[in-house]
Amino acid sequence: MGDPHAVIAGYWSAVAARDWDGLAAVVAPDVRYEVPQTRERVRGRDAFVRFTRDGFPGDWRIEISSVVGEGRMGASRIIFTGESGPEEGLCFFTLDGDGLIATIADYWPEPYEPPAGRGHLVERY
Amino acid sequence: MGDPHAVIAGYWSAVAARDWDGLAAVVAPDVRYEVPQTRERVRGRDAFVRFTRDGFPGDWRIEISSVVGEGRMGASRIIFTGESGPEEGLCFFTLDGDGLIATIADYWPEPYEPPAGRGHLVERY
Repeated sequence: MGDPHAVIAGYWSAVAARDWDGLAAVVAPDVRYEVPQTRERVRGRDAFVRFTRDGFPGDWRIEISSVVGEGRMGASRIIFTGESGPEEGLCFFTLDGDGLIATIADYWPEPYEPPAGRGHLVERY
Repeated sequence: MGDPHAVIAGYWSAVAARDWDGLAAVVAPDVRYEVPQTRERVRGRDAFVRFTRDGFPGDWRIEISSVVGEGRMGASRIIFTGESGPEEGLCFFTLDGDGLIATIADYWPEPYEPPAGRGHLVERY
């Protein structure tokens, strides 16, 4: 349980498989989940599993793009494809001393227009 | 140069200090920088340093929130404070075989309204 990469990969495998017991097994009893963009927060393992199970209605699937772990920290990128199409999700994690996920910061960056004045410095794709 | 955490921390130290030679020293000659939200792209060390130097006019400062590195991958969170206030920036990196930064995906998540239907599963902060 000490390898943050494996723990985070296991977290996403559990979510992707809707394996709620497996998800509960990799998060700390006092896990804290936050969405900094909406200022939503969920505290505690049971509430977090319930949120993940019930907070994303409709059909969806997840693909893991990348996972990186170091010490008690980690990050991931996923593609969440729900009824409104694919969205990229970015998470930053910390682990506790037992190797369980203690905090999750979950980000959903949306498209925006490029800032004015730097078009000569970039290309578009 | 092989430690991705140190390379990414050095990248941000150089940007924060406007040390453009130091920034050039940690990115690969063929570095590829992308902003997935705007679909902006910059290719090559010189163009990337020029973009970083000239693409953010006005006064600004950077604080590094967290860096995580593993193998040839890494991620960071920073607070960029410019003339319109603080913004959180998230980056995902890959390194090449020489330990230089090969790709940068730069995200700027903005606040949004919480999705309907899950208010009973979360608190707000």
